[in-house]
Amino acid sequence: MQPVKVGLLGLGTVGGGTVSVLTRNADEIARRAGRGIQITLAAAKEYNADAIIGLDQIENITDDPFSVVDDPDVKIIIELIGGYSPAKELVLKAIENGKHVITANKALIAIHGNEIFKAAQEKGVIVAFEAAVAGGIPIIKAVREGLAANQIEWIAGIINGTGNFILTEMRDKGRDFEDVLNEAQSLGYAEADPTFDVEGIDAAHKLTILSSIAFGMPLQFDKTYIEGITKIEQQDVLYAEELGYRIKHVGISRKVDNGIEQRVHPTLIPERRLIANVDGVMNAVLIKSDAVGPTLYYGAGAGAEPTASAVVADIVDVVRALTTDPENRVPHLAFQHDALSDINILPIEEIETAYYLRMHAIDRPGVVADITKILGDSKISIEAILQKEPVGNASCIPVIFLTQCIKEKEMNTAIIKIEKLDAIDGKVTRIRMETFG
Amino acid sequence: MQPVKVGLLGLGTVGGGTVSVLTRNADEIARRAGRGIQITLAAAKEYNADAIIGLDQIENITDDPFSVVDDPDVKIIIELIGGYSPAKELVLKAIENGKHVITANKALIAIHGNEIFKAAQEKGVIVAFEAAVAGGIPIIKAVREGLAANQIEWIAGIINGTGNFILTEMRDKGRDFEDVLNEAQSLGYAEADPTFDVEGIDAAHKLTILSSIAFGMPLQFDKTYIEGITKIEQQDVLYAEELGYRIKHVGISRKVDNGIEQRVHPTLIPERRLIANVDGVMNAVLIKSDAVGPTLYYGAGAGAEPTASAVVADIVDVVRALTTDPENRVPHLAFQHDALSDINILPIEEIETAYYLRMHAIDRPGVVADITKILGDSKISIEAILQKEPVGNASCIPVIFLTQCIKEKEMNTAIIKIEKLDAIDGKVTRIRMETFG
Repeated sequence: MQPVKVGLLGLGTVGGGTVSVLTRNADEIARRAGRGIQITLAAAKEYNADAIIGLDQIENITDDPFSVVDDPDVKIIIELIGGYSPAKELVLKAIENGKHVITANKALIAIHGNEIFKAAQEKGVIVAFEAAVAGGIPIIKAVREGLAANQIEWIAGIINGTGNFILTEMRDKGRDFEDVLNEAQSLGYAEADPTFDVEGIDAAHKLTILSSIAFGMPLQFDKTYIEGITKIEQQDVLYAEELGYRIKHVGISRKVDNGIEQRVHPTLIPERRLIANVDGVMNAVLIKSDAVGPTLYYGAGAGAEPTASAVVADIVDVVRALTTDPENRVPHLAFQHDALSDINILPIEEIETAYYLRMHAIDRPGVVADITKILGDSKISIEAILQKEPVGNASCIPVIFLTQCIKEKEMNTAIIKIEKLDAIDGKVTRIRMETFG
Repeated sequence: MQPVKVGLLGLGTVGGGTVSVLTRNADEIARRAGRGIQITLAAAKEYNADAIIGLDQIENITDDPFSVVDDPDVKIIIELIGGYSPAKELVLKAIENGKHVITANKALIAIHGNEIFKAAQEKGVIVAFEAAVAGGIPIIKAVREGLAANQIEWIAGIINGTGNFILTEMRDKGRDFEDVLNEAQSLGYAEADPTFDVEGIDAAHKLTILSSIAFGMPLQFDKTYIEGITKIEQQDVLYAEELGYRIKHVGISRKVDNGIEQRVHPTLIPERRLIANVDGVMNAVLIKSDAVGPTLYYGAGAGAEPTASAVVADIVDVVRALTTDPENRVPHLAFQHDALSDINILPIEEIETAYYLRMHAIDRPGVVADITKILGDSKISIEAILQKEPVGNASCIPVIFLTQCIKEKEMNTAIIKIEKLDAIDGKVTRIRMETFG
C-alpha cells in the first residue's frame, strides 16, 4: 500500500519529537500499521533543524499553516501548535476540508472540543487527542476502549508533571515551593509563566477531557473546581507525612447520586497507595470501575518523545480507521454523540470529602475541646489529631485534625466558627483528603 | 442498528461474569458501541443459574458447544471453556464457519496461537484475547495499539495473582510458602492443583503472548525459561527486604543484541520501584519503550468480573471492526502477519542479570575472601555483602552477596566453585535481580 500522507502543524518540542520518532521507528511502525506514514508537508514559524531527525524527508516546510490544511494530497493533519488561535481555526478548516485531525492540544479540546467534535461528526472525520492527556500514557484508549464494559465510578489523576515534581521535591528534600519552582523552570519542566501548571489549569483541561469520556457527557471545563499548589507549605507536607499521607495535586472526577464531581486540588492520599508513590515528573491515572475494579496507568506525562508516542499511536489508529464507516469508529467522547447525557457537574460546596485541617492555637487547656465541639456539632467525625510542641517560647502551637467525609459546605461553616475562637490565631489551612480505597 | 448476536461457550466463573456484566451494563455498553450486544446461545455442561444475572435472556442453553459454533445467526463466539480440548477444535471450527472469536484462554493462545491466527488470517476473521493476559488490565490493547510508535525494549510483568499473593503474605506476615498456599486455596485464589500458578506456567503462557506482541515474532512458549516460587524461603524474603529489595515472581521479556530473553522466575526488585509495591492478588506490567520511556499498567489479573471486563471490551472492539477491511484491523500479534520476524529466543545460560546469592559458610576468617576471589576471577562485581550473626552456637552463618550483571553461564561456573569450598555447607541459593531502572 502507498504511504499515508500527513501534514504537520508545528515543529516545536512535540512536533520535532513526532518527526524524529516517525523517522527512527519507521520500519517498526510500518510493520504494525501495514503501510508507511509520511509527513509530506509541515508548517512552522521557526524550528531547530539540527535537533529533528528526518526533517529532510519532509517535502515542503512552509510558514503558512493554512496552506497545509488546504493541501489536497494530505489525508491527516497533526496540530501541534498549541493555544487557541490559530489552532482552532486550523483544526476546523482541516475538518471542513474532510481531513482527519490529530492534536496534543488539551486546552483546545477542553474549551472548544464540543464544537470541534460536532464539526467532525458532520464531516465523518476523526479528531484524535491521545496526546492531550497524560502525554505518552495511552489513557484515552484505556478509558474509551479498554474499559468499555464498565460503569466508571471515579477517576483520580496526577496529570501535571511540573506540579508533581514540585511536591515530590518539597517532601523528599524539605524544600520550599518557590525554591523548587525556580529549579523546575531552569530544568525546563515548568514554563516561564508557570501559572497553567501550578494553578491547576493544565490539569483541569486534562481532567475535563477524562471526565467526559468516563461519564459520557459534553466537555465542561468552566464547571471544573480548580485549586493550585502555590499555597502548600512545607510544614503541611511534613505533617501529612507524619500522619501517613502524601500531598499530591490530583484531578478527581466522580459520579455520585446527584451528579459529577469534577475538581483539581491538592489532596492527601494514604502513603501505601500506589498513586501516592508516583513521584517527580511522572503522571498516573487511577480509575475505579464497576467490573474490573481499580486500574492504574503510569508513565511520562510530557516531553518531546513521550508526547510524540501518543501522537504517532493516534496516526496508526486513524490510518487503520480510514476505510471504516464513521458510525463504527470509536466515538470522540467514548459514547455515541447522540447518547451523551446531561449530567450535572456539582459545585465544590456540594462535594463530600475528608479533610486535613491545620490551625494555630494558643497553648492552653480546653482549646482542642472547643474545636472538637464545633466539629461534633457539625456532624464532622475526627479521624486523628496531631498536636505539636510549641517552638521555643511561642504561645501558639500547630494543631492538625484529620476528619472523615463531610459535605464541603458543612466544613466551610465549621471552619468559620473555628476561626472565630479567641484561641485560634489566623486562618485554618484546609487540604482535602481522599483514601482512593 | 440490530443487536449483534453472540454465542458463548462456558458458563463458569468468567462466562457467568460476562453474562452478568453484559446484562448489568447493557445501556452503558450500547451507548458506547452504538448497538446492543446479545448472547443468544450458550453452551455449558453445568452452571450455577442463581449466580448469573441475565441468564434468562439467553435464548437457548445447550450442552453441545459445537451446535453454538455452527449456528448461522451467531457472528461472534466467546470461548471461555479453558484448556486445550475441545477449546482448540471449537475455536478452529468457529473460524472455519467465518465467525470472529474472543477467548480468555492463555494456554490455548500461548501453545496453539500461531495455528489459530493463521486460520483466522485466511478466513479474514478476528481472534481477540485481551482477557488472556493480566485479566482486566487492557494490556494487549496498550502494547498493540497504545505503544505502536515505539520500539519496545523490555517488558516485566507480575502476571499471576496467586503467586503475588503468596509472596506478599510471606513478606508482610513472615509466613511460610506452604502455609500461605493453603490459605490461597481455601480463599479460592489458587486452584486445587496449584502447579500452573506456583511453578510459573500460567505466567509463562501470558509472557509468551506479551513477548510476541512486543517484538513481532511468532509465539514460542516452549523456549520460555520457567522457574516457580516453591523454593523461595522465608529467610530470603527477609534478607532481600533488609537489603532494600522485594522478591516478586516476574515474567521478563527483553530485546538484546543477539536475541530475546523470555523468562519467568523469582526476582529481586528495588523496593522504591512502583512495580515492587504491587501487592496481593493484583497484577502489573511495566514496559520500557524507546519513545515513551517506562509505562506501567496495574489492575486485577483474575476473577469473574475483571476478566469479563476484558472479554466485553473485546466484543465492543470486534463489533466496531465488523465492517472494517481485514487488512486494516489490528494484527493479532501487533505486527502484520507477513512482517513477523524470526528473532532468536535465548537460552537462560545466555541471559545477563544481577544475582542475590545466599550461602551457608563456616564462621571463620578468610571465608568471605575466598568467595569474593572466586567471584572476582569470574569478573563478577559485588554490589553488597550481608553477613549475619551465627544463631546460638551454630558453626555456620548465612552470607548474602548481591552481584552486578553477569551472563548466567559465568554465574553457574562461579557457583559450582563456591559450593566446592570446604567452608561452604550445602548449595548456594541463587535468585535473579533486576533494577528495572
